[in-house]
Amino acid sequence: MIERGELGLVDRIRKRAAGWTGPQIVAGIGDDCAVFRPNAREDLVFTTDFLIEDVHFRRDTHSPEDIGHKALARGLSDIAAMGAEPRFALLSLALAPWVDDLWVDRFYTGFLRLARRWKTTLAGGDLSHTDKVACDIVACGAVPRGQALRRDSARVGDAVWVSGALGKPWRTHLRPKPRIDVGLAVRGFATAAMDLTDGLALDLHRLCQASGVSAELDRVPVVRGSTQQQALYGGEDYELLFTAPEGVAAPRGCRRIGSIGDGPVGQVSLGGAALPVRGYDHFRL
Amino acid sequence: MIERGELGLVDRIRKRAAGWTGPQIVAGIGDDCAVFRPNAREDLVFTTDFLIEDVHFRRDTHSPEDIGHKALARGLSDIAAMGAEPRFALLSLALAPWVDDLWVDRFYTGFLRLARRWKTTLAGGDLSHTDKVACDIVACGAVPRGQALRRDSARVGDAVWVSGALGKPWRTHLRPKPRIDVGLAVRGFATAAMDLTDGLALDLHRLCQASGVSAELDRVPVVRGSTQQQALYGGEDYELLFTAPEGVAAPRGCRRIGSIGDGPVGQVSLGGAALPVRGYDHFRL
Repeated sequence: MIERGELGLVDRIRKRAAGWTGPQIVAGIGDDCAVFRPNAREDLVFTTDFLIEDVHFRRDTHSPEDIGHKALARGLSDIAAMGAEPRFALLSLALAPWVDDLWVDRFYTGFLRLARRWKTTLAGGDLSHTDKVACDIVACGAVPRGQALRRDSARVGDAVWVSGALGKPWRTHLRPKPRIDVGLAVRGFATAAMDLTDGLALDLHRLCQASGVSAELDRVPVVRGSTQQQALYGGEDYELLFTAPEGVAAPRGCRRIGSIGDGPVGQVSLGGAALPVRGYDHFRL
Repeated sequence: MIERGELGLVDRIRKRAAGWTGPQIVAGIGDDCAVFRPNAREDLVFTTDFLIEDVHFRRDTHSPEDIGHKALARGLSDIAAMGAEPRFALLSLALAPWVDDLWVDRFYTGFLRLARRWKTTLAGGDLSHTDKVACDIVACGAVPRGQALRRDSARVGDAVWVSGALGKPWRTHLRPKPRIDVGLAVRGFATAAMDLTDGLALDLHRLCQASGVSAELDRVPVVRGSTQQQALYGGEDYELLFTAPEGVAAPRGCRRIGSIGDGPVGQVSLGGAALPVRGYDHFRL
């Protein structure tokens, strides 16, 4: 039960979020729109991502703080994949009948803690109700003009890198870390990048497809306790996948896993064998 | 049933949306983020709005085209309320088990028709699944620096205006018209503005609360066949509510309905009697 209705809830969220407002935010929570003053030397990048009960999280395994954290982390991970710095976020939140004021407060605790870590202003959003909790994050980042890391620009001969080991077990998915720092560090030399959310095999296929190239994997770094299958076809690693000219030194912790080739477009192979195009798909369950 | 999975669906949406891309969109559908190149003379405004099955629409009364239209119209109505021109939109869409490919195609027909009418590029989004269809629109508009119409700047002595008659019956809510043209026309002289979605009494209360003023209504223009009660407390009119100095001529079709006063902050009265703070509230059902 939400006490004091929608006006009371908006007011409480506004007070909680007021702690930090970025210099470019001209108007934030409470108006029809947030107002942002752009900088002409930068391109802006925008992403939106759902986080839905029983699809992306479960109320019995995820605390309200976990859910708030993850809602924002999904958006920031996309910002990282573009090599951008976060600027602001909007959050649409549809609450289920079982949600109470305490749940909402704890949700925003998790959300705002991560927002402050990355200087991301919560500048607006929408509130609604439905049967199962649904969050939709909107995140905006900024990158020097023309320097956004796209996924359609990998080149034959590039090395393929990941920012960490893959196949993370369920528990560590609760508070995924957006790899903003890696995105900023590789922006100068990476030729293409994306974040890993649906499994290495499927996501690298997408990158290759977009770039019109193929990829050959030499090895797959697997987190302790997981299998290569989980690393290839499991989802939600939130590590960065990027390509760069051979010989360039990537940041500490990143691992070289293969190279880009001129085989059949979109094909990803490991040890000479083509991998199936398989991973997390919302419409093949 | 969605054939060909998520990759096929994204590909189909990209092809449908490719007809028109605004000059400032550097990268659109298919990457981690959309990339937008801002203009230093303009502020950018951002809004996000849910449209959820059995909350904002019903499958037995709304065609897929109606739902696609309405998803975008809700976002554009907020852009209108800031006096801004639409630039681009992102759409998050969570599909229910009953949705098939034809439904999705018809949904995008309704969405893209309105997008083209207002030169709004569909630049990205997210796809997911859930029990009931949920859309979340993200809309971005641009306005000359410092000229965004806010709701916290109405002044004592201003006249109160609406862009049309209120209390629209259910059927005409199917394809609400965002009042972009009215927003652009009043930008030069309006002191405050917002769009009417939760009923005049509640929305004008919010504007007065934000501006630290009260309002006295002289009359309430009601659409033929509706009652004053529906006009005051019904939702989803999608007309603009704005304030302006007395004596300024508003655009054709707009009606003067009252004036701003220095009574109790947030109070809205009609014929001398204070109206209850009541209207559409997601958490008081």
